[in-house]
Amino acid sequence: MKKKLRVGIFAATGTVGQRLIQLLANHPWFEVTAVAASDNSAGKKYAQATRWMLETSMPESVASLTVQSCTPDVDCDIAISSLPSSVAESVEVELAKSGMPVISNASSHRMKPDVPLLIPEINPDHLDALSIQRQRIPGKGFIVTNPNCTSIGLVFPLAALHRKFGLDAVSVVTMQAISGAGYPGVASLDILDNVLPAIDSGGEDHKVETEPLKLLGQWKNNAFIDAPIRMSAQTHRVHVRDGHLEAVSVKLSQKASRDEVEAAIRDFRSPIDELELPSAPRPAILVERDIQRPQPRIDRDRGNGMAVVVGPVQPCAVLDYKFRLCSHNTIRGAAGAAILNAELLYKKGMLG
Amino acid sequence: MKKKLRVGIFAATGTVGQRLIQLLANHPWFEVTAVAASDNSAGKKYAQATRWMLETSMPESVASLTVQSCTPDVDCDIAISSLPSSVAESVEVELAKSGMPVISNASSHRMKPDVPLLIPEINPDHLDALSIQRQRIPGKGFIVTNPNCTSIGLVFPLAALHRKFGLDAVSVVTMQAISGAGYPGVASLDILDNVLPAIDSGGEDHKVETEPLKLLGQWKNNAFIDAPIRMSAQTHRVHVRDGHLEAVSVKLSQKASRDEVEAAIRDFRSPIDELELPSAPRPAILVERDIQRPQPRIDRDRGNGMAVVVGPVQPCAVLDYKFRLCSHNTIRGAAGAAILNAELLYKKGMLG
Amino acid sequence: MKKKLRVGIFAATGTVGQRLIQLLANHPWFEVTAVAASDNSAGKKYAQATRWMLETSMPESVASLTVQSCTPDVDCDIAISSLPSSVAESVEVELAKSGMPVISNASSHRMKPDVPLLIPEINPDHLDALSIQRQRIPGKGFIVTNPNCTSIGLVFPLAALHRKFGLDAVSVVTMQAISGAGYPGVASLDILDNVLPAIDSGGEDHKVETEPLKLLGQWKNNAFIDAPIRMSAQTHRVHVRDGHLEAVSVKLSQKASRDEVEAAIRDFRSPIDELELPSAPRPAILVERDIQRPQPRIDRDRGNGMAVVVGPVQPCAVLDYKFRLCSHNTIRGAAGAAILNAELLYKKGMLG
Amino acid sequence: MKKKLRVGIFAATGTVGQRLIQLLANHPWFEVTAVAASDNSAGKKYAQATRWMLETSMPESVASLTVQSCTPDVDCDIAISSLPSSVAESVEVELAKSGMPVISNASSHRMKPDVPLLIPEINPDHLDALSIQRQRIPGKGFIVTNPNCTSIGLVFPLAALHRKFGLDAVSVVTMQAISGAGYPGVASLDILDNVLPAIDSGGEDHKVETEPLKLLGQWKNNAFIDAPIRMSAQTHRVHVRDGHLEAVSVKLSQKASRDEVEAAIRDFRSPIDELELPSAPRPAILVERDIQRPQPRIDRDRGNGMAVVVGPVQPCAVLDYKFRLCSHNTIRGAAGAAILNAELLYKKGMLG
Repeated sequence: MKKKLRVGIFAATGTVGQRLIQLLANHPWFEVTAVAASDNSAGKKYAQATRWMLETSMPESVASLTVQSCTPDVDCDIAISSLPSSVAESVEVELAKSGMPVISNASSHRMKPDVPLLIPEINPDHLDALSIQRQRIPGKGFIVTNPNCTSIGLVFPLAALHRKFGLDAVSVVTMQAISGAGYPGVASLDILDNVLPAIDSGGEDHKVETEPLKLLGQWKNNAFIDAPIRMSAQTHRVHVRDGHLEAVSVKLSQKASRDEVEAAIRDFRSPIDELELPSAPRPAILVERDIQRPQPRIDRDRGNGMAVVVGPVQPCAVLDYKFRLCSHNTIRGAAGAAILNAELLYKKGMLG
Repeated sequence: MKKKLRVGIFAATGTVGQRLIQLLANHPWFEVTAVAASDNSAGKKYAQATRWMLETSMPESVASLTVQSCTPDVDCDIAISSLPSSVAESVEVELAKSGMPVISNASSHRMKPDVPLLIPEINPDHLDALSIQRQRIPGKGFIVTNPNCTSIGLVFPLAALHRKFGLDAVSVVTMQAISGAGYPGVASLDILDNVLPAIDSGGEDHKVETEPLKLLGQWKNNAFIDAPIRMSAQTHRVHVRDGHLEAVSVKLSQKASRDEVEAAIRDFRSPIDELELPSAPRPAILVERDIQRPQPRIDRDRGNGMAVVVGPVQPCAVLDYKFRLCSHNTIRGAAGAAILNAELLYKKGMLG
Repeated sequence: MKKKLRVGIFAATGTVGQRLIQLLANHPWFEVTAVAASDNSAGKKYAQATRWMLETSMPESVASLTVQSCTPDVDCDIAISSLPSSVAESVEVELAKSGMPVISNASSHRMKPDVPLLIPEINPDHLDALSIQRQRIPGKGFIVTNPNCTSIGLVFPLAALHRKFGLDAVSVVTMQAISGAGYPGVASLDILDNVLPAIDSGGEDHKVETEPLKLLGQWKNNAFIDAPIRMSAQTHRVHVRDGHLEAVSVKLSQKASRDEVEAAIRDFRSPIDELELPSAPRPAILVERDIQRPQPRIDRDRGNGMAVVVGPVQPCAVLDYKFRLCSHNTIRGAAGAAILNAELLYKKGMLG
Repeated sequence: MKKKLRVGIFAATGTVGQRLIQLLANHPWFEVTAVAASDNSAGKKYAQATRWMLETSMPESVASLTVQSCTPDVDCDIAISSLPSSVAESVEVELAKSGMPVISNASSHRMKPDVPLLIPEINPDHLDALSIQRQRIPGKGFIVTNPNCTSIGLVFPLAALHRKFGLDAVSVVTMQAISGAGYPGVASLDILDNVLPAIDSGGEDHKVETEPLKLLGQWKNNAFIDAPIRMSAQTHRVHVRDGHLEAVSVKLSQKASRDEVEAAIRDFRSPIDELELPSAPRPAILVERDIQRPQPRIDRDRGNGMAVVVGPVQPCAVLDYKFRLCSHNTIRGAAGAAILNAELLYKKGMLG
């Protein structure tokens, strides 16, 4: 049996950090051997430093780790980071320059011209950008990012449709879970009996309008070329713990019937299916026939929280078709996404 | 001092019935003198028959009324009805044929070719349809309806834009309060930690896609002509007591700048402003500058629950502009709407 | 490999019925082969008849079963019933008289003088009452019940203390989850931003004040003798999906230090530990040191939802000591309780 | 018309500060002319510095005030303070020593031997302690406090019973609203689908066990003498915006029937009734007959949020009687309490 790779979790005490630790317990290839967090937590045992929020128990092997500061001195084979973007910007580059592969959930580097914004099922070829990134960050280290929690779910049915029919325009309105804001995050006085529009004062809308274009675009001639799709997003925080719901309308480049559109989504297959990555859901998209689905509480955990659940496709009088989707924001949309990225890199022999 | 008109509330024990009774307490022109409900409740005192849900106390004069059956025998000058549509279809016609003006919140007659679907600030001239309705319902009785709770809020900014620039297309995604489903309505096991898509299995989407076309259309040559706007709606129930939030995108017929669009909404004035109807909010639309508004909990009660609160207008990469709106679903969207209709009819001398 | 016993679930479409089916999927000894429910559902496939509420998928083998009426014609080896008490009263007796062992979660027979109110870890010897019950219900059939969802959790620490020190008096205030009221159960308009006192208009208080006395009492000379403990309960419904929280104060018969009291609870061992019943949690009681625990969301699923989690013991200035406990109301408090009862009966060779 | 007293609100931007400003709008005797808060806010306009949480609009006269630092330089006739206790300890003494009457909602000085812990309806004679306080704080300034939000509601029925029958012991379990924790206060991730025991890690329990003894005690021979009542409290935070619910059991010194006990509570009259203070509810206690009342959402706003609503009295098998009560925690329990204290002082001529 091969030795497991030693993973350091950066921002280990946060909501995504906790999910990473939960999901990596008993992982066949990876093992959490180091935890790093802000200076407030550094020096404490992980169990003391963390307000554990998950229903399953904190893994004992991690509970007893001492939290370290977020520096290249953390001893591990790969770093998985969910650092706040203010910190991630510089720390992740430092880590990479020190020779560390950095799998990041932070937003800081996602849109950089030499950083793959990666979803293994969607754009594994974007890893080719690392050859250019190496000019900036020589050595064995590098940075690979996953998208925003809302962009990820959205991009699955869009990829299915874009491949098959081409996409002209996408309009999306989101109803997002509170866990997406981290901890303490959303104040209960704000969200009880309420909906909060324009997450991050519109910053979230911007991510959802731009990240899918890179994800669905191409790496060509050493540069990313955005997919030429008009995107419009309105984001909202709703009173749900986990699971982002999105109401989507699309305009296709080619005519297609409702059944063809639904079939294209249902039959979406991923280029990585044959790789048998441990965290990859099979299939990646589940299509529900009931118009009253998907629902966050019922559908967020499907495929171990890694499947994207799409409702029935309906004609739209303004664009062409409309549908809803739901995905688990801290699993498929964050921790699980990063782990799946690490798995792809591992399988491709890019992790040490 | 003129004697007040005697109002009979039909479906008086329900959530909208309760709001009607609350809002009519101390009304300058109207007085609730009769309450009617299903046969389960008939014969009981209103206080016994009703699970009162509102924060203000049940008006004592109504508490002691005996609930009657929903027949033309109820003695009053006007009927305000929030009957379930299954019952409203026939009962409201019976009432009208017996000579009673019926102000209805039910959906049964809204789209009938001779029934005004009325919002006083938007289409008071649609009352002209009563001249045709009289052929079907001779005598002093008639039926006037108000729109669905979601359509009402939506139609305010749409009216402002349609008048000024023309509207080609409207896409709306709603986040609606649980009180819209009546009592007991939404089960707590369904909505806690959840969002429920496709209210009424899509029936709500249909109302929101059709009612605004009648409201923004014309009464011409003895017929309603729908406004030629493409409408697309996706509705959702969220964990909020009162106040529907709607995320809207619009395509205009004429080019207009963001500022012009926002000004058109802000400066919306109603043809009934000079009538000084007691329940009419002034102004009818409030525009907020903060992108994180409107919020149901904070904005639903503005203008005594009768104002429609609209957030900032933003460019939309798919259609032309997008914005959010919020309105109180059981006041502006139901009970208050019906009362305002009654007030308009009263002022025009059409109530006895 | 021994053939599994065929289980019929009575009231299979309800919230407890669903939990029974979920928990019996892959059970080593039992297999759900029949589902029965009200006449509305009879004749439909289980998947069609049921609004499935649980996060895990409906087991496929059950989904395709045809729902039957609740009569002795249902073909199975044992019946597990969560029938509403109005129906359970007669139906369960009919089933038993037809030769069927009936494991019931209903309240109808709990307090009968010849019916065991059974918690395997607490009072397995109460099964001796079946020898008397046989006079009333001859043959192989019989009725064994489990307690109310609130009584079950409460009785664990009480049993630990009563054995060791004797109990004079117990005062308990409960904060109970909405799933305890079944589906549709609690209206969201009632519970959003609210607490509902006096569940079942005080009926729940009564159960919590009486069932523990039978559970902690004795079967002696062919009769149950209640434990002589003064009990006072005030029950409340709170806005929580699953997991009842209870704040308890106790007066002991003998003096004991805080540490002795906490140790007695922590060291509670069950007479059935050596039986290795598949659903028995080990240990049955978990004691938390953090004064801010237990919490329903974090602690309800511990021990697969079968453990009772008790917080730190503190001195009480009015009685002697106070503490809180939490247990999962539809697992430990209902479906899991019934299954554990079935397992005990199976192990003792009392099921065919 | 007499000139209004100029009130300075200390900690004006917080949840209690906002309530103070809301409740003082249009007050007949007082006018908010200064607002003070932490140094973060100082120098900004109140409207800019404050995340206004209330349904009614921010009063315009206050919106434009510049926030000042919390020092004696704030120019006003009286200070009403809801400062955090860490700051209140020294700042309130400074203010008082500078000659300012300080009406405080903070906990810092409540239990001081020369500081009145005042509820006008309960213990107005405790103001006599100011004659001793003057030795420590010479001049016109002084400090008067109101109790913790949970103690206040509790003490009303206790006072009624203590006067009439004497109280031996009181056991209380609370279910408290999130607004009691201030803003941002309780994280939504903590409270959604949950209950949080032991508020302030037990600090709240301690306040509820001690403050009522001072409130129900006597000022005699220049010292406070606690009422000799054994008190036990277990506190919890529940998912409710406003309104604390408390489940109480009491042991009386004298025997009394259930009806006598309920009558004593219902007939409670306050020594200040004849003073006609503007914020005093009349009556101060409302007794409900329905065992499923009081409920926070329905009962918190009664008497303009100043009434304490008590449910039916029931026999308790452990102590003598039990009942529930509900009161609005930021009105009766904080802002309204402080204002009523100010009104009593004003009426007695003690404010300048």
